[in-house]
Amino acid sequence: MTLVVGVDIGGTKTSAGLVDSSGALLAVRTLPTPATRGRDAVLGTAAGLVRELAGDSGKVTAVGVGSAGVVDPRSGVIVSATGALAGWAGTDLRGELCRRVGLPVAVDNDVHAHARGERWRGAAAGHADVLLVVVGTGIGASLVLDGRLRHGAHSTAGHVGHVPGGDGRLCPCGARGHVEAVASGPALLAEYRRRTGAEVTHLAEVARLAADGDLLALSVLVEGATVLGSAIGGLLNVVDPEIVVVGGGVTGCGEAWWRALRDAVRAEVLPTLRGLPVVPSALGGDAALLGAARLALEATW
Amino acid sequence: MTLVVGVDIGGTKTSAGLVDSSGALLAVRTLPTPATRGRDAVLGTAAGLVRELAGDSGKVTAVGVGSAGVVDPRSGVIVSATGALAGWAGTDLRGELCRRVGLPVAVDNDVHAHARGERWRGAAAGHADVLLVVVGTGIGASLVLDGRLRHGAHSTAGHVGHVPGGDGRLCPCGARGHVEAVASGPALLAEYRRRTGAEVTHLAEVARLAADGDLLALSVLVEGATVLGSAIGGLLNVVDPEIVVVGGGVTGCGEAWWRALRDAVRAEVLPTLRGLPVVPSALGGDAALLGAARLALEATW
Repeated sequence: MTLVVGVDIGGTKTSAGLVDSSGALLAVRTLPTPATRGRDAVLGTAAGLVRELAGDSGKVTAVGVGSAGVVDPRSGVIVSATGALAGWAGTDLRGELCRRVGLPVAVDNDVHAHARGERWRGAAAGHADVLLVVVGTGIGASLVLDGRLRHGAHSTAGHVGHVPGGDGRLCPCGARGHVEAVASGPALLAEYRRRTGAEVTHLAEVARLAADGDLLALSVLVEGATVLGSAIGGLLNVVDPEIVVVGGGVTGCGEAWWRALRDAVRAEVLPTLRGLPVVPSALGGDAALLGAARLALEATW
Repeated sequence: MTLVVGVDIGGTKTSAGLVDSSGALLAVRTLPTPATRGRDAVLGTAAGLVRELAGDSGKVTAVGVGSAGVVDPRSGVIVSATGALAGWAGTDLRGELCRRVGLPVAVDNDVHAHARGERWRGAAAGHADVLLVVVGTGIGASLVLDGRLRHGAHSTAGHVGHVPGGDGRLCPCGARGHVEAVASGPALLAEYRRRTGAEVTHLAEVARLAADGDLLALSVLVEGATVLGSAIGGLLNVVDPEIVVVGGGVTGCGEAWWRALRDAVRAEVLPTLRGLPVVPSALGGDAALLGAARLALEATW
């Protein structure tokens, strides 16, 4: 049985998992990402986790990485990244990590890795045409069409957070009126604080308040989910996949969030798409790890 | 040199062209589509044009058809159609036309046929990843990804008119707040009449008024183009093609319409996509004919 290591480099934490070719996750290690300390620190953390899991047995054959930012899987370089990972843009992630761990490395964007994981062992298994949306600090997506993950002509495909939606609030990308500016985790939290003046610091508190009957908390969640659902519904009319899988921290906001999301999708889609399933991610936090491992297993070295 | 006939069945007219394998359009015939007289009349008109062009020489080897409506190219059946073609939904277009003309027939949606034409001999030639948008009575699109036209899991891919945009006006599809409801030809004309009370009956008059300095006409065109451009820009962030080709009658509304469209696209896209070209259709009214012919040439019978 082939063994590989999958790595998930996010703005907050870096996780690595030892995975066999059947998709079994045999061991996981996680450390905070030293995001403000520059690329060498981030690479060093990832390399340390890989070495720890690979050990000296020589049984691990390759490494797959899903990283935050726009990643060019062909060159292995980070095309661009937000301020969450200082100095990450321009990093030759594949080359640098390969040099540090002495194993072949394949890289991709973390949301694309998430999609690979869900298709391998999760909610999208068996589907050739999938839209996977991840709603967390940002809103990203991955399109799988005819069984192939779509990176796009400029490695930019999948930025579902950056389609028109909601009011004219400033988006982290610099444009106005994007879905991410009103439906991401930070946007929902900021909106609840703005409406109430309450000093809540985590979205989970807003979700708990909504579940307890706080109508302002409920309306903030429902409005965000509605804007996102409308945008997803519009995309379905253009892309027409078999299934939509939605993951990320914001999906833990409860049943009202999900109901609003699904209602908005249904209101937007053409009649032929009314039955298209919109389901939660099955692998949660392990999805990107497993997908990165799958990337390593599928790569031809 | 192989000869085929390409047919373009629209709500207003049906055109057929004799095309050789180099893409030369040797002859064209056009008749009004008997849209209100039911499917047999529509099929009879198309079959008559094919027979006229094919003659008795036996040199024409196949027929390709681009038809209005949602078309399943695998079964050859019209999945759904708007009221513009009465009784068209459910028609076995491939089977019925094949029976009438005695030649193998391949069918697709007219917008997809348009895209095939532009890729073969027009503005999208040489590109593997293309978004083609047609703005006329409705707003449709066709996605070509990795060189393959994308029909979608429910033959519904490409409905760019049915993404969120503009105000909450009722869309022909029955939903509210879709781009088509504010940016299609009839929507622009209706909005100009609503604002002015003027009895204009054709969009070309509005375009001429705008060109002559009528600020209300200008603002109606600019607002429609801006909503459409924002929607296209958002789609580019998700799909990331190499080029956008825009065709259809509304693209004849003048330079202000085009400038507003391109400005809105640029304002919406992520930095990596700022240079993505947005160009006019090169084949105009012949695009769907040529694309239908190409479909016949590419099909394996």
